[in-house]
Amino acid sequence: MLGIFVIGELINASIKTTREIIENRDVAALQDLARRQVEGGADFLDINVAAGSGNSTREAEDMKWAVRVVWEAAQRPLVIDTADQVVLGAGLGAYREIAGNDSVPMINSVTAESDRLRPFLELAAEYEALVIALPIDEKGIPPTASGRMEICRKIVGFAGEFGVDSQKLYFDPLVLPVSVDSSNAATTLETLKGITEMQGVKSTMGLSNISFGLPHRALLNRVFLAMALQVGLDSVILNPLDSELMATVRAGEVLCGKDEMCQKYLKAYRKGKLGRKGRG
Amino acid sequence: MLGIFVIGELINASIKTTREIIENRDVAALQDLARRQVEGGADFLDINVAAGSGNSTREAEDMKWAVRVVWEAAQRPLVIDTADQVVLGAGLGAYREIAGNDSVPMINSVTAESDRLRPFLELAAEYEALVIALPIDEKGIPPTASGRMEICRKIVGFAGEFGVDSQKLYFDPLVLPVSVDSSNAATTLETLKGITEMQGVKSTMGLSNISFGLPHRALLNRVFLAMALQVGLDSVILNPLDSELMATVRAGEVLCGKDEMCQKYLKAYRKGKLGRKGRG
Repeated sequence: MLGIFVIGELINASIKTTREIIENRDVAALQDLARRQVEGGADFLDINVAAGSGNSTREAEDMKWAVRVVWEAAQRPLVIDTADQVVLGAGLGAYREIAGNDSVPMINSVTAESDRLRPFLELAAEYEALVIALPIDEKGIPPTASGRMEICRKIVGFAGEFGVDSQKLYFDPLVLPVSVDSSNAATTLETLKGITEMQGVKSTMGLSNISFGLPHRALLNRVFLAMALQVGLDSVILNPLDSELMATVRAGEVLCGKDEMCQKYLKAYRKGKLGRKGRG
Repeated sequence: MLGIFVIGELINASIKTTREIIENRDVAALQDLARRQVEGGADFLDINVAAGSGNSTREAEDMKWAVRVVWEAAQRPLVIDTADQVVLGAGLGAYREIAGNDSVPMINSVTAESDRLRPFLELAAEYEALVIALPIDEKGIPPTASGRMEICRKIVGFAGEFGVDSQKLYFDPLVLPVSVDSSNAATTLETLKGITEMQGVKSTMGLSNISFGLPHRALLNRVFLAMALQVGLDSVILNPLDSELMATVRAGEVLCGKDEMCQKYLKAYRKGKLGRKGRG
């Protein structure tokens, strides 16, 4: 698609209010959260129900419930976000049941860790899912862009073996806080550049880690997003209720030539979604 | 220098209030405008007194007056901004008289047009000035990045002949409105990339033309600035009273590794200069 594709991140049990919604099986609250993200500009909705219990059966039930409830409200493709293959299988199954074969789900996320790589790619192939892939292996996150690219290439190779076309892969270059090491932003952007230069694959990115430990995190997140869009980011995982961040997406599309005749930008403007009126 | 160097653009007679300040020889108002720009974060102050009269003698007097008045208030390097060599010589002379030999002035701007190239470079050499250079020749602004780079190389060659070291050149890749042609932003950023890859020369950019003809211009200007910083922009010409734009400069320095230990960012934060508090 021409524009930047936005994945709403708020249905995540690591957020206390969301965890409570899931625990209480609060249909109205979950559907409200889904609808507000779509209204804010989300194209896909991420669903992560992991409450850290380590109880696969319980989390699989939570995931199936959340998938059904969110789909009914939002009718948007969902991202099944889990580190547990049982939960992933349950989520993808529930999604196919309710959304049918025409709506493509997404998996978040495949890594090069042996407990994830094969089972997750097998499920991706079975459900013809899009796949968010992270350059992480047993040793963790490589500190250099070249180390991360090596893992990306390895994942592309395995994906091919399992019948997952490289065009379905969305690599996240991974963001570490710039407060810890001033070169962390450059390493991420260099990895992103490497990803954009790979044949066929696409890119996505979770933003907010960049600003950890610094004040005015939302400002740093916005500026970093603009920089990543310049490098060629295809998709982004963010809070679509942050209107200034979403305004950055819309402005970035215009400036990257991804918004024909500025149509999306002008539509967002007419709906009052570009934030406060700036000068000029 | 490590950070992004900011040129304040508000002392420009094309702005009606500034033109009146100059016409009325209003010392207090001009000094206030100078001080507020420095307080906002300007490292250099641009001075353009052209009121479109075409009267060199009058404009030379205006320039000499403004240079003295602004220097007294701001004690910051000044950018003598004119298309007229008589006005340029008068401004540089007044600057040397009042600021002495230790403070380096800047010229805005040299182009490849024959009436500017030689006389402006001669004055730059005489006053050992920094030089903003624009890829414009008799035929105007080339539509392509390669056309603009050709003129940049031509100017570097001439500068060498006239004894102006290439390290004193700040090339502006030139910005045309994205509302007119959706590829205009990409052409500017591609030119900027070419400039950053040239040996020795530096880059600067006037921003605001990018957003001409669209609503919420300040938003587009901010996002475009972030993108240009990512490509490697060394300096920027802007309104330092736009606190959100200046916050973008500070965040951009952090993310480009140009703010050691985030010192400038944290200082701006403590002074309440990073705009409204964002989430997180």
